[in-house]
Amino acid sequence: MKRNSELVKNAAGRLVPTIVNGKKGIPFKGVNGYFPDGNKTAPPIKSCSNYPLDGNKLLGTLKEALIKSGITDGMTISSHHHFRNGDLVMNQVFDIAAELGIKNLRWFPSAAFPCHKPMIKYMEDGVIHHIEGSLNGPLGQYASEGKMNGLAVLRSHGGRWQSIQDGEVHIDIAIIAAPTADSFGNATGDRGPSACGLLGFGLADSMYADNVIVVTDNLVPFPCIPWQIQGNNVDYVVQLEKVGEPEKIVSGTTKLTRSPDRIHIAELTAKFVRAAGIMKDGFSFQAGAGGTSLAFAIYLKEMMKDAGIKARFIRGGSTKYLVEMLEEGLTDYILDGQTFDLDGVRSMRENHGHVNTSPFTSYNWHGKGNFAGILDAVVLGATEVDINFNANVVTHSDGLMLHGIGGWQNCLFSKCTILPIPAFRNRVPIIVDKVTTLVGPGELIDVIVTERGIAINPKRTDLIESTKDSGLPIRTIHELKNEIDDLVGGAPDKPEFSDEVIGVVKWVDGTILDSIFKLKKYQID
Amino acid sequence: MKRNSELVKNAAGRLVPTIVNGKKGIPFKGVNGYFPDGNKTAPPIKSCSNYPLDGNKLLGTLKEALIKSGITDGMTISSHHHFRNGDLVMNQVFDIAAELGIKNLRWFPSAAFPCHKPMIKYMEDGVIHHIEGSLNGPLGQYASEGKMNGLAVLRSHGGRWQSIQDGEVHIDIAIIAAPTADSFGNATGDRGPSACGLLGFGLADSMYADNVIVVTDNLVPFPCIPWQIQGNNVDYVVQLEKVGEPEKIVSGTTKLTRSPDRIHIAELTAKFVRAAGIMKDGFSFQAGAGGTSLAFAIYLKEMMKDAGIKARFIRGGSTKYLVEMLEEGLTDYILDGQTFDLDGVRSMRENHGHVNTSPFTSYNWHGKGNFAGILDAVVLGATEVDINFNANVVTHSDGLMLHGIGGWQNCLFSKCTILPIPAFRNRVPIIVDKVTTLVGPGELIDVIVTERGIAINPKRTDLIESTKDSGLPIRTIHELKNEIDDLVGGAPDKPEFSDEVIGVVKWVDGTILDSIFKLKKYQID
Repeated sequence: MKRNSELVKNAAGRLVPTIVNGKKGIPFKGVNGYFPDGNKTAPPIKSCSNYPLDGNKLLGTLKEALIKSGITDGMTISSHHHFRNGDLVMNQVFDIAAELGIKNLRWFPSAAFPCHKPMIKYMEDGVIHHIEGSLNGPLGQYASEGKMNGLAVLRSHGGRWQSIQDGEVHIDIAIIAAPTADSFGNATGDRGPSACGLLGFGLADSMYADNVIVVTDNLVPFPCIPWQIQGNNVDYVVQLEKVGEPEKIVSGTTKLTRSPDRIHIAELTAKFVRAAGIMKDGFSFQAGAGGTSLAFAIYLKEMMKDAGIKARFIRGGSTKYLVEMLEEGLTDYILDGQTFDLDGVRSMRENHGHVNTSPFTSYNWHGKGNFAGILDAVVLGATEVDINFNANVVTHSDGLMLHGIGGWQNCLFSKCTILPIPAFRNRVPIIVDKVTTLVGPGELIDVIVTERGIAINPKRTDLIESTKDSGLPIRTIHELKNEIDDLVGGAPDKPEFSDEVIGVVKWVDGTILDSIFKLKKYQID
Repeated sequence: MKRNSELVKNAAGRLVPTIVNGKKGIPFKGVNGYFPDGNKTAPPIKSCSNYPLDGNKLLGTLKEALIKSGITDGMTISSHHHFRNGDLVMNQVFDIAAELGIKNLRWFPSAAFPCHKPMIKYMEDGVIHHIEGSLNGPLGQYASEGKMNGLAVLRSHGGRWQSIQDGEVHIDIAIIAAPTADSFGNATGDRGPSACGLLGFGLADSMYADNVIVVTDNLVPFPCIPWQIQGNNVDYVVQLEKVGEPEKIVSGTTKLTRSPDRIHIAELTAKFVRAAGIMKDGFSFQAGAGGTSLAFAIYLKEMMKDAGIKARFIRGGSTKYLVEMLEEGLTDYILDGQTFDLDGVRSMRENHGHVNTSPFTSYNWHGKGNFAGILDAVVLGATEVDINFNANVVTHSDGLMLHGIGGWQNCLFSKCTILPIPAFRNRVPIIVDKVTTLVGPGELIDVIVTERGIAINPKRTDLIESTKDSGLPIRTIHELKNEIDDLVGGAPDKPEFSDEVIGVVKWVDGTILDSIFKLKKYQID
């Protein structure tokens, strides 16, 4: 049985541990309440005298690269998730670690996917101590059941950058799987047989890790252009037969919704954006890759065409729908953080206006500003929202932690944050009294759009005013909640939690926003 | 009168001070003799809470930006030299500093030009304590005369990056003059009325300085694409009417030589590259912007066309001659460090294959490799070479320090370093017994080409072997020197130096390679 460190109540009223995986944690102090001191982490100074003068860093095998990187017990090994569920590299890395008898590694991926299920066996036998990163699917289930050593630490994309930059997470060995690279280590994601678009989620790793290994299945003569990853940060290059399965790289979530309710929600959302005066020449928006977000973008596109309006930029995750807008001249730029389909990859390669970004440019809270606050509107999902507009994206209504945060928390700083969500899922209402897990503070969430109406955060009197004569079904969140609860016969029973923490949710500034508790049914006393 | 710190003999046998501008210096230990320890410099962690959430960092005046940056006595203020002799910003910065009564500033430009002559008055009255950076023209003369407080510190482009990255030089306020920028601070040099190509010489400043001010005369709506400088590193943005004079931005050195001797040298150099087997499919070369280098590139181009040979990449300083090669398909890429003419600027904007680089990618010795060693051949100038192939680029035969190092030292790591130089300048022989100032150790210099023959470094038996039947006038350096000395009636008198040091030449690793001594004629006892 696992023992918690002391739990304290943070500024959001949530109980959080003071020690996380052996390190002191700072409880959340409010959205703008924590001011870091100190300096960024400082990687060791290297010398060209220790690297091949002709620039050729190619080694024969991944094993050789890991050994030369000094892999040893207790190290932190990082990776990016641009291959999503098609990654063929990281299981091999830990196979080699197991073969070498290494123990207690920390895996620090930007996200883990169902294809990484074999890592469970390495957690069972001690090769991996624990995983810090978004845990999607079976690894999330495993952690939820309290089986993982150490706590799950859920960070946003920006929060992951912040944690590396600020020295909270020291990476010993970074693995950068790359669809195309040269032997110096310059690497790109936008071309090659395993093209996945960009490699931005591995950028911080390449800059701050002690040892950086680029793994590619498409080695080109120097220089690999573009160099999304700079070879000047890379120690070794390894060529493998295949680093990713292209057909699985593309996200399964980029399917347009067919649900009439969702389509209705998407249309309402687009109409809201228009009615509120957000849709105007030179505006900007971000919409995710979920089915409803995609449908929203399609509705908005038609409205923009009808009104003769052009956006200055759209933030991706790019999809063919955004690429169409770029190529039809409806926006000057796509600022892309990850490509969700092959049209996105092609466009990034071909279109000057399809620009790749990183968690540094877009999301890092501990920089001199970031792009998120510049957005006029952002359209996001949620698993739950509450009557104070707080929202959850990591736990389900059954209490299981099955999703990562992604860029969701970072995006909340947009000028207008809109959550289009169904009133219920599987007869469970989505609007609750209090979210199971707090991931987004209500003060940053402006609008909730359901098929039964639109609720505007009372703080946004400007939006209430600008849409009051729009004919849109604007209602209070309480009205919405009551109606939905009545329909399903009252709010359902909440899952029962023990007082044992299995994971924490970090805020964008690295403080601890909430804890994820173990379900009572998994409790073994 | 100035007092030297103790002088010690370094690994090159040169006397160098142990203290430079109040900081302990490390004497040169050999080309690969110094291994740094410690960590890179770590800038303070910032928070978006302290920056405008909508990304608008625009201030009304440069003065306001300097005051908000906390300008105060003794600070270091940096700038880049992409505007070359057309810079209109830095004199204004120091005018404001003078107006504010600030004293003892260190100016840390990547290079200073004749347009910065007004800085002399600020050194006279104590606003500026001293300048560290390439001192071209009147500022070099001023320092040579021993009038500057503190020592001149000459660094290569890569050495400047290294000095910032390693924390040797801490920048308090970086001024990034930019031909185009947005109010978030994203900036580019490749467009706008003052377009100068790229901004790579200001990149380290933007990453490591405590305060970063972008100054532009062409403000565009967010996002400024491309962002050669990332707004996430920028504190303030200021709009001025004019930041640079385009007609002076373009280097005066990019004129093809008309001298028959120089044209002959250029042709010999190209023939040598062909004869040595360097010119083959997929090869790479770098040639500077001097008249002889340009003529070399034109000869080589014709030879490549005749032989049906294509380069993989050419390193710029780009000029219209290199751009023609790119656009005619004679190379896949130009990897450009600074654009020397408007064709270079246009090409960088238009051609996917014209790629901008930085001193980090190309030259920084304290990284995990750099591009310089990957080059098959580099063609460089020199003011003097000696019989051991040591070379000088910073002092003239009259002993005055009038040039910066530029990328010259960094380029010496190429697989074949060739110096095409005239046998004499103003009847002063260029091949000497011992260079006045050691800037490039002879072990890195492979070939010297004069109008009277070609000398190959005896260490390069491979080159001697491959060119022995080429019909080229290959001779020993001693033969060449003797012939030249005979022609001018013996080696001329050397300038007489005092034992007072007015500047130091740093090696690429930050150690002190040589001292520049004050001429006796400027000595006031």
